[in-house]
Amino acid sequence: MSPHYKLIYFNARGRAEHIRFIFAYAGVEYEDERISREKWPEVKKRMPFGMLPVLEIDGKAVAQSNAVARYLARQYGLAGRNEWEALQCDVLVDTLGDLKQVLAQFRMEQDPIKKEEKKARLMRETIPFYLSKFEKMLSENNGFSVGSDITWCDFVFAVSLENFEHIFGKAALDQYPALKALKIKVYNIPSISAWVGKRPTTES
Amino acid sequence: MSPHYKLIYFNARGRAEHIRFIFAYAGVEYEDERISREKWPEVKKRMPFGMLPVLEIDGKAVAQSNAVARYLARQYGLAGRNEWEALQCDVLVDTLGDLKQVLAQFRMEQDPIKKEEKKARLMRETIPFYLSKFEKMLSENNGFSVGSDITWCDFVFAVSLENFEHIFGKAALDQYPALKALKIKVYNIPSISAWVGKRPTTES
Repeated sequence: MSPHYKLIYFNARGRAEHIRFIFAYAGVEYEDERISREKWPEVKKRMPFGMLPVLEIDGKAVAQSNAVARYLARQYGLAGRNEWEALQCDVLVDTLGDLKQVLAQFRMEQDPIKKEEKKARLMRETIPFYLSKFEKMLSENNGFSVGSDITWCDFVFAVSLENFEHIFGKAALDQYPALKALKIKVYNIPSISAWVGKRPTTES
Repeated sequence: MSPHYKLIYFNARGRAEHIRFIFAYAGVEYEDERISREKWPEVKKRMPFGMLPVLEIDGKAVAQSNAVARYLARQYGLAGRNEWEALQCDVLVDTLGDLKQVLAQFRMEQDPIKKEEKKARLMRETIPFYLSKFEKMLSENNGFSVGSDITWCDFVFAVSLENFEHIFGKAALDQYPALKALKIKVYNIPSISAWVGKRPTTES
């Protein structure tokens, strides 16, 4: 019997959406609890390290979105065919994490001059550096990020690329056809598409 | 037969030392290549994502220190007894990573006033918050971070706590006896102790 899962996060895609994609793909039931900003200070005190998302597995609270996603991916056959492919998933998820951290530093920058400088450098250097490497990798790999089948890493890419288009506009991926195709491929998986069709509409 | 491993990093403990601990503990041979600052710009171009550490496994370059460490930990029996314990390792390593990121932001702060503010907040809130949670967990867990035996997570803790003492002084862990005991336990493992006795002395 499947454990009782409760995913606790804000009313957002954010750091939880790839976990929701795994549940959708695996056809696993879970509670999708969304904490309002008003309730957060009280809920925060009960969370293992004061942060979300947290997945409760049969009542045991587990923090850290990628640790949770990796665990579920292993349970439901989405972590590659072997340890080598599982490693490649981990490498790419963390590398995408590095890029997202640079993006977050840009978005949080308060000083308008520094923000422009950061944006210029992002657009000219950092983003093309990473995306061209990812693009090459997908092109050499039959359109999957790892191995020859879907993994949780593809979900992390798809969700990140959706956010990337929100921030930089739909044309931002035009130079990266393989990345764009991966995103479309994931969103066209029937179980994912069904989830995306019914999920709450949120800004981020 | 064991693969040919080459660990490429700077002449530092940094983000590679927990990997070296895994190799030492498992008794696995590897090349410990240390790149000088002068050679780095040239080496950087050849690295998968322009960063170190990288582990070459039979000539295949793999980036991301924690992905590499997790993979090796699984190969050599240091990732817990089952998937649940492997998950707990991942959660704690990433949570310690969150704390280290806050520490890095403090160390990189250029503005002396902001730096003092960040330090005060770290000492008053962030560090006690995390360390007291880790302390409680170790006390409830027979002195191991996960399960009832040594894991790669213990190595990540030990190496981080050594750096913590370097930054904040030896007395910084006095309030956290279980953390201190874990650090000592890891450094007293004969294979680790032998490595620490012969490794190059470096600042960080």
